Amino acid sequence: LTSSSGELFGALFVPADAAAAVGDRAWLVAMLEFEAALAGAEAEAGVIPADAASAIAAACDPDRFDAAELGRAGHKAANPAAPLVTALTEAVGEEAGAYVHWGATSQDVLDSAAMLVAKRSLAGLDGELAACADACAKLAGENRETVMVARTLLQQALPTTFGCKAAGWLVALLEARRRLAAIPLPVQLGGAAGTLAALGDEGPRVLELLSKRLELDQPLMPWHTARSGVAELGSALALAAGCLAKIALDVKLLAQTEVGEAAEASSGGSSTMPQKRNPTGSIVTLACWRRVRAEAAILLEAMAQEHERAAGAWQSEWEALSNALAYTGGAAAAGREMLEGLEVDAERMRSNLDAGGGQVMAESVSLALARDLGRGEAQRLVAEASRRALESGQPLREELLADEQVAARLAPEQLDAALDPSGYLGATDLFVDRALEAWKASR
Amino acid sequence: LTSSSGELFGALFVPADAAAAVGDRAWLVAMLEFEAALAGAEAEAGVIPADAASAIAAACDPDRFDAAELGRAGHKAANPAAPLVTALTEAVGEEAGAYVHWGATSQDVLDSAAMLVAKRSLAGLDGELAACADACAKLAGENRETVMVARTLLQQALPTTFGCKAAGWLVALLEARRRLAAIPLPVQLGGAAGTLAALGDEGPRVLELLSKRLELDQPLMPWHTARSGVAELGSALALAAGCLAKIALDVKLLAQTEVGEAAEASSGGSSTMPQKRNPTGSIVTLACWRRVRAEAAILLEAMAQEHERAAGAWQSEWEALSNALAYTGGAAAAGREMLEGLEVDAERMRSNLDAGGGQVMAESVSLALARDLGRGEAQRLVAEASRRALESGQPLREELLADEQVAARLAPEQLDAALDPSGYLGATDLFVDRALEAWKASR
Amino acid sequence: LTSSSGELFGALFVPADAAAAVGDRAWLVAMLEFEAALAGAEAEAGVIPADAASAIAAACDPDRFDAAELGRAGHKAANPAAPLVTALTEAVGEEAGAYVHWGATSQDVLDSAAMLVAKRSLAGLDGELAACADACAKLAGENRETVMVARTLLQQALPTTFGCKAAGWLVALLEARRRLAAIPLPVQLGGAAGTLAALGDEGPRVLELLSKRLELDQPLMPWHTARSGVAELGSALALAAGCLAKIALDVKLLAQTEVGEAAEASSGGSSTMPQKRNPTGSIVTLACWRRVRAEAAILLEAMAQEHERAAGAWQSEWEALSNALAYTGGAAAAGREMLEGLEVDAERMRSNLDAGGGQVMAESVSLALARDLGRGEAQRLVAEASRRALESGQPLREELLADEQVAARLAPEQLDAALDPSGYLGATDLFVDRALEAWKASR
Amino acid sequence: LTSSSGELFGALFVPADAAAAVGDRAWLVAMLEFEAALAGAEAEAGVIPADAASAIAAACDPDRFDAAELGRAGHKAANPAAPLVTALTEAVGEEAGAYVHWGATSQDVLDSAAMLVAKRSLAGLDGELAACADACAKLAGENRETVMVARTLLQQALPTTFGCKAAGWLVALLEARRRLAAIPLPVQLGGAAGTLAALGDEGPRVLELLSKRLELDQPLMPWHTARSGVAELGSALALAAGCLAKIALDVKLLAQTEVGEAAEASSGGSSTMPQKRNPTGSIVTLACWRRVRAEAAILLEAMAQEHERAAGAWQSEWEALSNALAYTGGAAAAGREMLEGLEVDAERMRSNLDAGGGQVMAESVSLALARDLGRGEAQRLVAEASRRALESGQPLREELLADEQVAARLAPEQLDAALDPSGYLGATDLFVDRALEAWKASR
Repeated sequence: LTSSSGELFGALFVPADAAAAVGDRAWLVAMLEFEAALAGAEAEAGVIPADAASAIAAACDPDRFDAAELGRAGHKAANPAAPLVTALTEAVGEEAGAYVHWGATSQDVLDSAAMLVAKRSLAGLDGELAACADACAKLAGENRETVMVARTLLQQALPTTFGCKAAGWLVALLEARRRLAAIPLPVQLGGAAGTLAALGDEGPRVLELLSKRLELDQPLMPWHTARSGVAELGSALALAAGCLAKIALDVKLLAQTEVGEAAEASSGGSSTMPQKRNPTGSIVTLACWRRVRAEAAILLEAMAQEHERAAGAWQSEWEALSNALAYTGGAAAAGREMLEGLEVDAERMRSNLDAGGGQVMAESVSLALARDLGRGEAQRLVAEASRRALESGQPLREELLADEQVAARLAPEQLDAALDPSGYLGATDLFVDRALEAWKASR
Repeated sequence: LTSSSGELFGALFVPADAAAAVGDRAWLVAMLEFEAALAGAEAEAGVIPADAASAIAAACDPDRFDAAELGRAGHKAANPAAPLVTALTEAVGEEAGAYVHWGATSQDVLDSAAMLVAKRSLAGLDGELAACADACAKLAGENRETVMVARTLLQQALPTTFGCKAAGWLVALLEARRRLAAIPLPVQLGGAAGTLAALGDEGPRVLELLSKRLELDQPLMPWHTARSGVAELGSALALAAGCLAKIALDVKLLAQTEVGEAAEASSGGSSTMPQKRNPTGSIVTLACWRRVRAEAAILLEAMAQEHERAAGAWQSEWEALSNALAYTGGAAAAGREMLEGLEVDAERMRSNLDAGGGQVMAESVSLALARDLGRGEAQRLVAEASRRALESGQPLREELLADEQVAARLAPEQLDAALDPSGYLGATDLFVDRALEAWKASR
Repeated sequence: LTSSSGELFGALFVPADAAAAVGDRAWLVAMLEFEAALAGAEAEAGVIPADAASAIAAACDPDRFDAAELGRAGHKAANPAAPLVTALTEAVGEEAGAYVHWGATSQDVLDSAAMLVAKRSLAGLDGELAACADACAKLAGENRETVMVARTLLQQALPTTFGCKAAGWLVALLEARRRLAAIPLPVQLGGAAGTLAALGDEGPRVLELLSKRLELDQPLMPWHTARSGVAELGSALALAAGCLAKIALDVKLLAQTEVGEAAEASSGGSSTMPQKRNPTGSIVTLACWRRVRAEAAILLEAMAQEHERAAGAWQSEWEALSNALAYTGGAAAAGREMLEGLEVDAERMRSNLDAGGGQVMAESVSLALARDLGRGEAQRLVAEASRRALESGQPLREELLADEQVAARLAPEQLDAALDPSGYLGATDLFVDRALEAWKASR
Repeated sequence: LTSSSGELFGALFVPADAAAAVGDRAWLVAMLEFEAALAGAEAEAGVIPADAASAIAAACDPDRFDAAELGRAGHKAANPAAPLVTALTEAVGEEAGAYVHWGATSQDVLDSAAMLVAKRSLAGLDGELAACADACAKLAGENRETVMVARTLLQQALPTTFGCKAAGWLVALLEARRRLAAIPLPVQLGGAAGTLAALGDEGPRVLELLSKRLELDQPLMPWHTARSGVAELGSALALAAGCLAKIALDVKLLAQTEVGEAAEASSGGSSTMPQKRNPTGSIVTLACWRRVRAEAAILLEAMAQEHERAAGAWQSEWEALSNALAYTGGAAAAGREMLEGLEVDAERMRSNLDAGGGQVMAESVSLALARDLGRGEAQRLVAEASRRALESGQPLREELLADEQVAARLAPEQLDAALDPSGYLGATDLFVDRALEAWKASR
């Protein structure tokens, strides 16, 4: 009854579908698809008999093979494709069995399977990211006029809108989707030395036919030890997860008890502390993101591969790629839950903004005074009033009104205008527009 | 006389021009260009007086400022832009000084400067990468017919050509260049909260004018805490360095005393061991690559930034980006030296190939026999002959000739054809063609 | 006038002394000390003439050598020791020059110099860490009774004391110091192949004498490619920086405008936003920490070194170790500033605790009720009251008093006792005691 | 039939026992042991009734709980301990159920379980590392006199012995074991805020009793957000895996076809290329090592944890620690197989050494000449002879004999002595002795 399947934590971070998309069976299916498509392509090119290809295709049934057994058997060869080919050859039987895996090498199967697994996994991921983007677009559109304080270095700075914040999240998500969609997913076929020698003159044609059958890109040449595609995919996943992490970080900070401007609808409570609104979606997103970067680092490190097949680096990619895909999926799924259910407390946003006694409007007042006084003098006056206000606990307005130089230049209603956050929102509305346009264009 | 300038190691890894492109002065120049261009754009938009803009531009002379002093002063603000703005304001003088940095925030200066620094640094890097590609193209073209052994898992596998190996290097370098060239380098301008509030209605126009003046891309909105562009640049640099690392790894393995198929022209000798041909270019390339990945990891980690300005993550980017640029430059420069001077020993390649007594041609013989005997039986026969040859020390040819079943199916001249490496090179020539075409298209 | 010296950012993060301790001159001094001590040890062992040793020692004057020039010259050999030995030999002159570097290899100089540089750098670092610990001890002792809210998942949870929080910081710092102090710093001497062959029978004795002269540990055997010591040092630095990062993270969260429980005395203000109390010490600490981990990762990766001298991995260590030392120093210095000047706002701590209307005392009330009602029922009742209080905006006390079952079991004064944070502090006082005892024992 | 269990690759890299030691069931068992021991300790301290403790202990049967289900349920709380406590409480039943998890928090269970899992996993790992050390000791002892060439920067340098090389591996493994054994594994108990408040006055006593029952170390205070212990464990695992990686790198380089000095007994062959002796143990070791470092980096990054419970960082530790343990186990198991079955080809070592025509003895000859000629002149002469020999293809001996200045100083038998590798082994024998002594002391 021992188990190392990792569902105790795995299922916590990665939804079942994202996990299945990179799971043992998904890899097995992809490897068998490669073998069937290879045989088909080779038959089409006249390299092997059509009968053999049919027999092979028929035997490529994932239910016939046991992933765990292949894993154990793969230890000796340091890859699981070798035992799979052996088992498949046996399953096909004597005659046609001779044509199984014809002209291919273990890495051809595994690399092509990796691209198939990636392709399917990315489709699911893209759906989640699109849903995250939709949720951000909704938040941006609905909160154009939800004034809140912008925080720099975790200090209240100036007013902004929650719509503008969500627009920033949205733009980043759109870029992440675009980046992932642009990554080529090429088939792999090179044979033992990457020369296609075992396929005689038909090598290039088989490569082309195979790429069509598997609906993968056709590479200029085999990429057994030219791994920038795999590493780039890892980095793009880390970039996508990073966009989600930024959102999650903002949400968990907004959800702090003392801030209380947002809460996750699905936030996990605490049995003994019912007042808590734990930002569990953010937490899951952030934890997934950390793993994705670690996996991406493995993939970048794996680029230095020896000669025509690497001894260690290539073998480190399989789990790294699977995990990078799955945990970006986990981050996106948790991010979607978090965003779709985000409860925005506009009143609290406003009251937090107001709680500072107008200090965050100091720049606005400075600027209002600056044309008359010069920036330096204006800033000096406002800074002094601010400091007096901070000390006295008075609103900034009172201290400004009490200052003769200020009073001489700004009438109370001018001062109030300068102190009104809604009047000092700059281009936030335009930014929301631009983000929403980009979002519409992406759909 | 204390010094922390890091030239003892820095100058070893990074050429002077690549170092200067990200050095203190380059940053200072870029920051001052931002301030001058901002003032210019604001004057053009009618936000500040034209006279002020001229006075500011005149004061933006890097010789007036001391980077080390700004660094020390920047400790208190946790950024070096704050003291620069103070110093520049002073330099501009009372009247126009009030318009220095108008409506901008420290991060606007630093992020825009980062993009300028990156742009110039990338131009130099692209030149080095292009030279690396040229050298690979030369090697690929000249060595189309240089037969050598392909090595998988560091074991001799099958014949290939050195031209094909170099073609693989070339394709990867072209991809690296394309990837770097595609990364947007946007200007940054958002003001204290990323809303452009201090610029009134002219914010978006100033943003546009500024991006034109600095010849940087115009972003949809400020990206103070949307850092995927910076992180993507880091990853693309790591991918470029990774392509160079793959080449360097191959070269250092080929240059091993026992292999001796290649040597670096500039290889460092050893005073006490004159026989050594140390692959120092490869070594420098590989050491640089390790750093670039570390810096890229910092940039990926920096994506989770709080609210409207991060407290720690953003600040970690400056040196990480500079180093990633500089050490990719170092890897490329050392790679270029290594590739341009690479001494290829075609005779040794052939003798290493032959030294195995024809074992690497076993697959070729298997395939020659397979159509008659079926793959399984053919492989079995050849494997047995191989094993006998390995034990006896005889060439594989003799053991195959001694096998009745083989002899019955392959005449000696057929066997010799199957054992001839030049006749079992598959599509290597085509791959060289494709790589060279891609290279020509890239120029 | 180009410059790549990196002071613009370097001086911001790393104080001058910590930078100098790993700077070019520090390395140069250490390498020359090695050469002088080696000659001395060899003379003592009768391997070289005593006169030669004196002449060598006399020439080992750092002012005679130019680090930048050595760096450039070192590019060809892929290490800066080779040109230094050449220059030193020249400086010593014909006769005694023949005995310079006798029996040693470049890696002997650089590795030994690395240990000397580390030793001196660690001494400075330890002083900073000790000062951080002292500051934490002061905070812990003074704030034993400063009640504040404990936050879990960034939600208010239960009461604790600021003294207890500071005690936790303190214990971690003490462990970090202990860990760094325990790391061996061995001399390196093996000669070209790590066998000491060039020293004839006197190799082991020279090794012993050298380790004494340099006051470094004596290794069991040369460690040219056994790098766990270097990697362990990197990890220990990352662990130390991690302890500081935890404190910095807490401080920057406490310093948020909406929390306001702590502020850095040296916090950088903002010229345009005087209300901001930017946690710049925390920011510098956190940024430094990110770099230290990146450098530690380079050192861990560098453990796989080929045969008797590595081609790439070893060369990646020099800057990684220097930076890890310097930026841990930067983190510690900024941490010390932050801790020594930390302004603790006990009133705000209390008011934040009270602002939740007693919700954080729910567990306390649950427990008070649990013995009578069973934990489940008690929790249920309190959770309901909490929820009612959250909805109504009433203090929890009122909702509890209104609950008949509660009222039946807890008299108002019992309820008030259960709702008093000061009465529900558990072992915080004991933990402060234990931390302070460990601190005293460490001095 | 979907599956994400990861056995296809997992079983390839990690043996069943090492996987099981960190698997779902192992965690479940450990969490239940914590709950049982906590109840027992609390009963002993008089905090809960003895009957309740018995009932709880009886219910702590891992067969009653479903890890995957807990994982899925744990998504909402962002930890799997919360649903386990709920399920356990239900299993215990109404009365005693109220005392389940009394005074503890989810993190108490998970952190303590992590330490239990680590402890058991480390026991297995230590066994593998000890077996690796034993194998190295055997290789070192048996190959004291097996002369081979030392290689620096992958170039033949000077003679050494394989025994000395194995001694270096051994010393590193002993250090790795020592380092892992020294890491404290403390119990965790702090309750919701780390204050033990819910246990009244008995908190510290329960903590002490609990640590005894679980045979874990007793911490000074709860370490909910003081994570240096976990991070240190990760680093120590990476250091251990790094020692194995160094060995694996050497072995795969020695096993290269062109070097052929060692081969793995269990090396995976290739069906189509029977001549290959793939170093699969080395490959598995190296691939595992890359993962371990990635996991260790996650743990180091996780040190910055917010306040009294982290929102993201803590949650990233569970899988990182499990994987770091499992893949270090995988590296050690593959390393043991590799080392125990290592086939050392002493003849090939000697012939590779001789193949260089005596060039690797140049230093030896230089030194023999140096006393008469001075180091500079001696080196110059030998270097010239070496260069002539390299050009002519003659053995170095012939070129030296042909040099009048050399001939005048060294008689042919003196020259032969200087050219004999066995006479230029320095302290290799002593280093083997020291390593074996340390090994004996470690047993």
